[in-house]
Amino acid sequence: MDEHELMMKKCLNLASRGQGKVSPNPLVGCVIINESKIIGKGYHKYFGGHHAEVNAINIAKKNGFRLKNASLYVNLEPCSHFGKTPPCADLIIKEGIKKVFIGIPDPNPLVSGIGIRKLKKAGVEVVTDILKGDCLHFNRFFIKSITKHIPYVTLKVAQSIDGMIALNDFSSKWITGNKSRELAHQLRASYDAVLIGKNTAEFDNPSLTVRSAVGRNPKRIVIDRDLSLSSDLKIFKDSCKSLTYIVTSSSARPIKGINYIKIPSRNGKIQLRQLLKALYSSGINSVLVEGGACVFSSFVDDNLFDDAIVMVSPKIIGNGISVFRDFKIHSLSKAKKLNLINISRKDDDVILYYKNN
Amino acid sequence: MDEHELMMKKCLNLASRGQGKVSPNPLVGCVIINESKIIGKGYHKYFGGHHAEVNAINIAKKNGFRLKNASLYVNLEPCSHFGKTPPCADLIIKEGIKKVFIGIPDPNPLVSGIGIRKLKKAGVEVVTDILKGDCLHFNRFFIKSITKHIPYVTLKVAQSIDGMIALNDFSSKWITGNKSRELAHQLRASYDAVLIGKNTAEFDNPSLTVRSAVGRNPKRIVIDRDLSLSSDLKIFKDSCKSLTYIVTSSSARPIKGINYIKIPSRNGKIQLRQLLKALYSSGINSVLVEGGACVFSSFVDDNLFDDAIVMVSPKIIGNGISVFRDFKIHSLSKAKKLNLINISRKDDDVILYYKNN
Repeated sequence: MDEHELMMKKCLNLASRGQGKVSPNPLVGCVIINESKIIGKGYHKYFGGHHAEVNAINIAKKNGFRLKNASLYVNLEPCSHFGKTPPCADLIIKEGIKKVFIGIPDPNPLVSGIGIRKLKKAGVEVVTDILKGDCLHFNRFFIKSITKHIPYVTLKVAQSIDGMIALNDFSSKWITGNKSRELAHQLRASYDAVLIGKNTAEFDNPSLTVRSAVGRNPKRIVIDRDLSLSSDLKIFKDSCKSLTYIVTSSSARPIKGINYIKIPSRNGKIQLRQLLKALYSSGINSVLVEGGACVFSSFVDDNLFDDAIVMVSPKIIGNGISVFRDFKIHSLSKAKKLNLINISRKDDDVILYYKNN
Repeated sequence: MDEHELMMKKCLNLASRGQGKVSPNPLVGCVIINESKIIGKGYHKYFGGHHAEVNAINIAKKNGFRLKNASLYVNLEPCSHFGKTPPCADLIIKEGIKKVFIGIPDPNPLVSGIGIRKLKKAGVEVVTDILKGDCLHFNRFFIKSITKHIPYVTLKVAQSIDGMIALNDFSSKWITGNKSRELAHQLRASYDAVLIGKNTAEFDNPSLTVRSAVGRNPKRIVIDRDLSLSSDLKIFKDSCKSLTYIVTSSSARPIKGINYIKIPSRNGKIQLRQLLKALYSSGINSVLVEGGACVFSSFVDDNLFDDAIVMVSPKIIGNGISVFRDFKIHSLSKAKKLNLINISRKDDDVILYYKNN
């Protein structure tokens, strides 16, 4: 890793502090150096707050450092348009910064490249694609949603060696171990929303909150097409009930204080693409799908997921509920092929990370 | 790794050359050093051949080296009894070797420790437990069978992410990739026998030979309780037909040149423990179980396997034949818990290695 990549890595580390707070904005971090010394650091802290570049520049100035001829590192192209804040590109030019190192261009097709052109036109030296792969992965939620107008979708599976997520009576507590559950809660804190189906809501009665990790609770999206779930469930009664969104084809609104999203169904199933569009429209950029088999299978069937985190416990369950049992193919050539990206271990659980293309 | 462990590692490397050739004997390698110089190396080459110590001593003498005051490394306690060859302990004493470094004592309870005592009594310095864990694992086939009188049993599974080993029509070609298949063939070369059930024989029509690796073909054990398999299958017709053993409850011997093992059945199933005892009696120390679901499930149900090698392909099959679908539990506490020992990767396949206890 060269010096520029090291600085970009610092930007990403800074940016990650905004996780769970800046969506639907991207995660951005910024480092400014002058004469080989870091003189300013900043990141985008919360939705509507200053951009990372502004925070880094302000810190440098507050501490009496000169910005003239400085180099600025930022993981995403500086903005060129007036949004909630004035354009960062203009500020960089105004302060006399000499070089700008950028991870990736703004993925928003409406503005991509405009900030870079503005900087170059003003005589600022611009270098792009620093740690490009890392920067793309880092802001995958933002990039997916701004380009496709649906949220980034991750399937999070906790299964036995043989792919079972529950016994036939739907019991599933606990298949994976404590450390995997901590990871699951960390994930919840970094996604805008978690999503489950009716059976999981009914049989597990989960709260879907962040307890075994630090972070804010995500929105809780529960598919209940016919509104048949009992109002005694935790999602309807706990202190986070304002985070509960019931997806239904019915027009009824039976429980006060709960949000309802009406989505048409087809062949007895909620239309997932329509649901994802609706979620994107309400500012949700990332969805963690936590089961069960029916929901997982539908996302595979409709090819509407971006990646899968499969936590494999060292257990054999045998005859039970298989994770994708409602996904049906008639030839092995139709099997859904994923790309294995990473393998890690949490005690005796194996965590497999796959991307869908 | 200290000097003694390095020498023991050399012994294991030498010993491994006997893989597939020495069973039901153990794999043994031997290194002799004198004045910090290796003067002799040897290993047990084939069943009935010289022991490793004899080969190492002979090489040293042939090359004119003095054995007096030398140190000898061997992964298994030198024998003390007259078998197919004279006792190695006596030879070591006779040659004036001063120190003997041993991996593990002979696991055969009838002779364990006798060789060590004989050496010590003759004034030879003996150090045991060098790389003990490695040596135990290395000769796991021999240790299991000599102590339990049944072969070591490994379940070798090739499955999708979701634990499917075939579609519902039994098609399973190919779930895992080329490199996993090479590994599977390497495994075949190192086990005394491979074992499959009737459905796998019928639908896959496998030859169960070693083609994508170097090594000898294993015996092929096929469970066909009622002798309903077609005589057109490869296992009955190819050039290795003498390696085919049909396990049946019937007394008929319909196909000439094929071996039959008669085992009683219970509840419509071949009694696996009886089968394993019969295999051990005929000199088979290790069995690689290659499926299908019915056979895998029975080995789990009867708890008659020692470890499992699970090759996970990066595919989702969904509704299909689940690897242990005939294993049934009524509470998650009854799930069969294994110990995760190792994770590796072959292209996009993940190879999980579990031990049963």
